[in-house]
Amino acid sequence: MSQPPLASTPLAVVILAAGKGTRMKSDLHKVLHPLAGKPMLLHLIDTVQQLTPERTVVVVGAGREQVEAAVAPRGAATAQQIEQLGTGHAVAQAETALNGFDGDVLILYGDVPLVGAATMQRMLERLHGADAPAAVVLGFRPADAAAYGRVLTEAGSDRIARMVEFKDANAAERAETLCNSGLMAVASRDLFALLARVGNDNAAGEYYLPDIVMLAREDGRITAVIETSEAEVAGVNSRAELASVEAAWQVARRARAMADGATLIAPETVWFAHDTVLGRDVVVEPNVFFGPGVSVADGATIRAFCHLEGAQIGSGVEVGPYARLRPGAVLEEGAKVGNFVEVKKTRLARGAKANHLTYLGDAEVGAGANVGAGTITCNYDGFFKYKTVIGEGAFIGSNSALVAPVTVGDGAIVAAGSVLTRDVEAGALALVRPEQVSKPDWATRFREKMRARKAARART
Amino acid sequence: MSQPPLASTPLAVVILAAGKGTRMKSDLHKVLHPLAGKPMLLHLIDTVQQLTPERTVVVVGAGREQVEAAVAPRGAATAQQIEQLGTGHAVAQAETALNGFDGDVLILYGDVPLVGAATMQRMLERLHGADAPAAVVLGFRPADAAAYGRVLTEAGSDRIARMVEFKDANAAERAETLCNSGLMAVASRDLFALLARVGNDNAAGEYYLPDIVMLAREDGRITAVIETSEAEVAGVNSRAELASVEAAWQVARRARAMADGATLIAPETVWFAHDTVLGRDVVVEPNVFFGPGVSVADGATIRAFCHLEGAQIGSGVEVGPYARLRPGAVLEEGAKVGNFVEVKKTRLARGAKANHLTYLGDAEVGAGANVGAGTITCNYDGFFKYKTVIGEGAFIGSNSALVAPVTVGDGAIVAAGSVLTRDVEAGALALVRPEQVSKPDWATRFREKMRARKAARART
Amino acid sequence: MSQPPLASTPLAVVILAAGKGTRMKSDLHKVLHPLAGKPMLLHLIDTVQQLTPERTVVVVGAGREQVEAAVAPRGAATAQQIEQLGTGHAVAQAETALNGFDGDVLILYGDVPLVGAATMQRMLERLHGADAPAAVVLGFRPADAAAYGRVLTEAGSDRIARMVEFKDANAAERAETLCNSGLMAVASRDLFALLARVGNDNAAGEYYLPDIVMLAREDGRITAVIETSEAEVAGVNSRAELASVEAAWQVARRARAMADGATLIAPETVWFAHDTVLGRDVVVEPNVFFGPGVSVADGATIRAFCHLEGAQIGSGVEVGPYARLRPGAVLEEGAKVGNFVEVKKTRLARGAKANHLTYLGDAEVGAGANVGAGTITCNYDGFFKYKTVIGEGAFIGSNSALVAPVTVGDGAIVAAGSVLTRDVEAGALALVRPEQVSKPDWATRFREKMRARKAARART
Repeated sequence: MSQPPLASTPLAVVILAAGKGTRMKSDLHKVLHPLAGKPMLLHLIDTVQQLTPERTVVVVGAGREQVEAAVAPRGAATAQQIEQLGTGHAVAQAETALNGFDGDVLILYGDVPLVGAATMQRMLERLHGADAPAAVVLGFRPADAAAYGRVLTEAGSDRIARMVEFKDANAAERAETLCNSGLMAVASRDLFALLARVGNDNAAGEYYLPDIVMLAREDGRITAVIETSEAEVAGVNSRAELASVEAAWQVARRARAMADGATLIAPETVWFAHDTVLGRDVVVEPNVFFGPGVSVADGATIRAFCHLEGAQIGSGVEVGPYARLRPGAVLEEGAKVGNFVEVKKTRLARGAKANHLTYLGDAEVGAGANVGAGTITCNYDGFFKYKTVIGEGAFIGSNSALVAPVTVGDGAIVAAGSVLTRDVEAGALALVRPEQVSKPDWATRFREKMRARKAARART
Repeated sequence: MSQPPLASTPLAVVILAAGKGTRMKSDLHKVLHPLAGKPMLLHLIDTVQQLTPERTVVVVGAGREQVEAAVAPRGAATAQQIEQLGTGHAVAQAETALNGFDGDVLILYGDVPLVGAATMQRMLERLHGADAPAAVVLGFRPADAAAYGRVLTEAGSDRIARMVEFKDANAAERAETLCNSGLMAVASRDLFALLARVGNDNAAGEYYLPDIVMLAREDGRITAVIETSEAEVAGVNSRAELASVEAAWQVARRARAMADGATLIAPETVWFAHDTVLGRDVVVEPNVFFGPGVSVADGATIRAFCHLEGAQIGSGVEVGPYARLRPGAVLEEGAKVGNFVEVKKTRLARGAKANHLTYLGDAEVGAGANVGAGTITCNYDGFFKYKTVIGEGAFIGSNSALVAPVTVGDGAIVAAGSVLTRDVEAGALALVRPEQVSKPDWATRFREKMRARKAARART
Repeated sequence: MSQPPLASTPLAVVILAAGKGTRMKSDLHKVLHPLAGKPMLLHLIDTVQQLTPERTVVVVGAGREQVEAAVAPRGAATAQQIEQLGTGHAVAQAETALNGFDGDVLILYGDVPLVGAATMQRMLERLHGADAPAAVVLGFRPADAAAYGRVLTEAGSDRIARMVEFKDANAAERAETLCNSGLMAVASRDLFALLARVGNDNAAGEYYLPDIVMLAREDGRITAVIETSEAEVAGVNSRAELASVEAAWQVARRARAMADGATLIAPETVWFAHDTVLGRDVVVEPNVFFGPGVSVADGATIRAFCHLEGAQIGSGVEVGPYARLRPGAVLEEGAKVGNFVEVKKTRLARGAKANHLTYLGDAEVGAGANVGAGTITCNYDGFFKYKTVIGEGAFIGSNSALVAPVTVGDGAIVAAGSVLTRDVEAGALALVRPEQVSKPDWATRFREKMRARKAARART
């Protein structure tokens, strides 16, 4: 996660995202499908931010509005490719947006979200390295090279001799294992000059980005390839591939959590979000789902079947099993949230407890307070939300409803089953309870009557 | 799932299910153990229905009653094999049940449940194909051929030269990789004539079905083998094999769900039933269990830890996390069922919400109604079930108990903590609540007293 | 699990646990990290108990107090290794604790917890077998021999010719696949005599236990190696390795559960504890977590998402989905505990039911009693716990709070929404409920007012 050294040359990033994504069968643009709780495209944009690019341009086809809305807060622009005329044509659409820019251009793909900043940095460094290549291609060696385009190098060097589409490759070329990921680094002044010369004289009638390699060679320039792992350039064209990239991300994240000193009893059943923060000696039982925005301090225990989003979990806190923490849940040191408890926009101060079947929304719970089983904060009247305040050391009896806005003073006790509509002063007992009435033998007679009715129905 | 073309010849199916299933260690007949929520045997019977057989006969040993009860609603008959004298003997027990039938016979196994209709159809087509074979055997090439019987063919053809049990095979024969699945297609007139000639002159003293292959050859007839995958003919002899066949089924089903346009964040944690229906752009979070009878419309979201059975989930609905939908739950467009909520035999109309810690049974919830946290429909008096009706746009305050039969009118409000026993008219407020009483300093004094008592106990 | 025959020679066990465990990044001593709910070290100690050792000594470095507290209840002693001077030095620290002992010594490792009693027994038997070896080493053949020390045997025998650390091995030695697990069996009189002669003339300046092999050879004695699987000697040096050993343990335990006649629909999602007991024809749905102390009788069903600890589940009982059973939960035959129900220190007699959203703590529920949805036993007043007794065939209406100590008599009925503070006699109806009040049109007017307020706020 450390920031790589910045290249001194200005950087622009072009992210291709014009593909139709037909195989996703979705109304959501392919590159906006989330990965670890964040759209794929934003993973990529957040990664490139580490290289502090001057401009970022996302080339979009259909669904431009969706993509624009997603990337605008990150300061990225979009360019539109109206007709799908190939990758070379797609990159060319970014030219206007890069007008006046002079520096390096990194070409990425919105559906190849796992590429790391270190790899991007290596591409840029090579671009400024030996023999001053006109372009740097990112290659990889897949377990099954299948139909990927091949990159052929000059013997004993990283200079590209030729790039060939699989369908145009002969048997010897197909035997090569180095494949083209599509990612490239090119100086802006070279990029658009070369692209202008790319033709579409091929079966598909498309303008191919890799063609600039041979055009550079015609100019007596060299181009180079660097390699990375297959996993880093995995692409997403279907929901199955999305699940597979998600799985790879999760495996890496779980390994990091364990290396940092968390126990995951069954790592394969813990799902992290892109921004989960986990302390040391945290224990996570099986089946825990971290949505975005969760931090867990040292020594906390997250029991099985928890669902956590936007929550701060303090040191030594015990959560769950079956706890649902929603955005704004803050559990201070030693607090406890137990089973079938939902907490939203609520702070539980040190040592406060809500152990069973409870809903706490828009509340403040004081240190050491005990919220009994079945307690509900009634925070919503159908129009507005209101706040509940429970004082330090207060005791809320089970099955109580706290009708907000309402305050229970420090050390007060609310009797079980109360529906609280007025504030309770500190140290007082609040009771909202009618007399208990007994009707002797009523149950016995009721049962006789119902049994008779049941028998009568059975006869008809 | 498309129906293959029907053979013009009448079809009968014989399913062998006489094995003791000892390794299952179960009181339930082996072939009735469920797979994706449906007994294995019924998977097979439902598959063969696609070929519209005239008769289906299940050959049973012990536990005939259990099997008969299960298959009778599907129109299948049973025949009993009292002594376990081999597969040939087992098939022969179906002769009476097939009395008068003249056509093709497909021989299947109740513990080999994943065979598809297309494969069965291929077997039947081959039976009527070149050289008019007397029998068609279904072969497969397992990763580990182990102790399977081998199928030896004439060079360059699908004609069977010989079938040999593993224990009788020599080294050359054992080196063959094509194995016998046991499944067979034979014309009825051939089948029983050949079976009558099968002997039991072997170590086990059993009548082996595959012997009809050599008997046909003695008559100058040929027999043929077609191949399928190992997975399709996986057998179930133990709970571990049952789990393994279930896993294979689930893997295939998940892949289909994703191909059809659903996002499964962690596909390996989603369990489908045999009849689950899933729309496009449905998102399923980790750890969701679909029991039988669930359909999910386009754009719905099923959050983590849901347990769904017999439920209809409308378009754009959000369910969970931790929602339990039981048979008869109907969630119309835009409805919402949240955490720790159970819904049974209840319709939530458009946009109705029940977000927290609620039990809705035998109820109708009108469009846009809001059911507060901790609401319980009291639908059962120990003898009968009663209905609760909540009107359009009504608001049920938290922690309320609705004692059915009861109706809350359109737009009515029920105050928090109410126990409702009488109907509420439209637009009214219903309140069932005693006065709140405060006893100042009571809590402070109570604590002093209890602390003293605790200290006293600690001293003793 | 059967007890191997006991060696007639007295046995002592030395368990090395002095490693710093730095890679665990934990305040908890490495060997105390739990595996299937029990500290690793105790797994090992409980296994060796099957061989009835006379003494067990755990050699500890830092964190002695933690380890001592954990092993003392098992009757094991600790010895301290203050400086970390190698495995030979570590074993030598046990000499004082073994003062006066004359017999076999088994040397084990606290972070190698899965070694079985049968393997230990084999080591001891070999020690007393042919050629009277001075020591028996436990070897294994890992998939990747990596940097393990190699064990070289004399051709065609189990006699050790040499043991060589990987870094000292030449190419031929590295090509050997038999590796040293570190486990050893040695007679006590040989062990300490040999250890006294081990030097530290090596790069690390450490005293290596394996050096006793060559020293014995100098004395004209032989040493022998026996082999086991890599899985059995897997070591734990990091949380990732802990997860991996846990996974291996779970895989084996699940296989045993299935072999014994339980159905695990998705075995990979069921987590057992070290002492879980499971009957025949038990069905376990996906995602069930067994903490320590659970037994499940024949024919019970554990539905999805259950979390069980210290619970006895009777024959034919149905639990879950989403049931949390805590220590002291006893469910007799035919009882039922449903969704979002927590049960602690509570017995449900035959056929009793608590199906929805309930908390039962410190209670007795009589046979056939029905506990309605949303029932809470209020068992805690902030200082003490009190008991709730519900009689046979009683009916507790939904959303009731039972304020303990309280008794509901046999066959009594508690009306829905009651807060019960006094006992209810058998056959009676208890009602704690104010009158229902209706305010016509109140809701309509309220909505008008709130809409106006909302609109006003939106304008500002």
